[in-house]
Amino acid sequence: MAHVPVPEGMPGIRGLMAYRPETALPLNQLAEVLLQGPSTLTKGERELIATYVSSLNRCTYCASTHGAIAKHHLNDADVVRQVREDPETAPISPKLKALLRIAAKVQQGGRRVTDEDVAAAHAEGATDLEVHDTVLIAAAFCMFNRYVDGLATWAPDDESIYDQIGAQRATQGYLAPAKPLA
Amino acid sequence: MAHVPVPEGMPGIRGLMAYRPETALPLNQLAEVLLQGPSTLTKGERELIATYVSSLNRCTYCASTHGAIAKHHLNDADVVRQVREDPETAPISPKLKALLRIAAKVQQGGRRVTDEDVAAAHAEGATDLEVHDTVLIAAAFCMFNRYVDGLATWAPDDESIYDQIGAQRATQGYLAPAKPLA
Repeated sequence: MAHVPVPEGMPGIRGLMAYRPETALPLNQLAEVLLQGPSTLTKGERELIATYVSSLNRCTYCASTHGAIAKHHLNDADVVRQVREDPETAPISPKLKALLRIAAKVQQGGRRVTDEDVAAAHAEGATDLEVHDTVLIAAAFCMFNRYVDGLATWAPDDESIYDQIGAQRATQGYLAPAKPLA
Repeated sequence: MAHVPVPEGMPGIRGLMAYRPETALPLNQLAEVLLQGPSTLTKGERELIATYVSSLNRCTYCASTHGAIAKHHLNDADVVRQVREDPETAPISPKLKALLRIAAKVQQGGRRVTDEDVAAAHAEGATDLEVHDTVLIAAAFCMFNRYVDGLATWAPDDESIYDQIGAQRATQGYLAPAKPLA
């Protein structure tokens, strides 16, 4: 049972956003800018960063949800699974691998990111803004993951639930009202 | 030197917000709702939670800034220093101590927060919403701290700089444009 009285049947951050709409608004706006807004990183790449950090934080709800969104963007479930298991051997670009190395450092703590990590990303073609957004996506999921698990919200076992959320968010973004789950 | 080209002379998150105003907006809106919005926790109590988590994350800029804001709200520099050193022996209410114990768990990872931690806070008079906001403030500072340090921003040594920021934010909140530093 969640640590605060969220509406019955609403999993993860959905229940928390219904419970506290005042904070839901900026949280969704942040996700919209970072994950859906204009960027030279594809939406699929950005959702892979979110999924990977959520996996490192062992946040089942966020890793499953953003994994499902990434799958819908990329039309490829295998690459999502491989990034969650080990980005180094996943079939992704050297640039995204370098950015995921930075994201993993951020997950451990901001001070872990070195000049060499950033130079390595630039050497693979990453721009300053891509480095910035990678750090902020990773940092934001260190927040979202702690919010969702720190209040002991419900993480469904049923993969079809994440697929529904993934399809909706991939097509409608983060500002659309949450559709009721079938 | 910061990992992205922030404007010269702008410390910490100020430089990042000038560099990327699209993400600055929801980040400031989140801080405004959590730290300045209507709440049964005082602004000073909420800034103490932010300061304590930033200290645990060893984020000099955020701990100094929010410590200065807390000092302005509480008109008491000693209590801020004592909370940063050890909340258990600080002259604060039993309720705030229980909430800071939850915040410390969130800093380590969301799954650390137990039913017993939440029950202990309720036993000291904390409401559901106070527990919710404590978890989200702690989670949000796990983001802000990683953002500020993950991009290697400048943390001034000069305490008067934090005092200027503290005085401005305590009186004007997080949506007012950052005033140039003297």
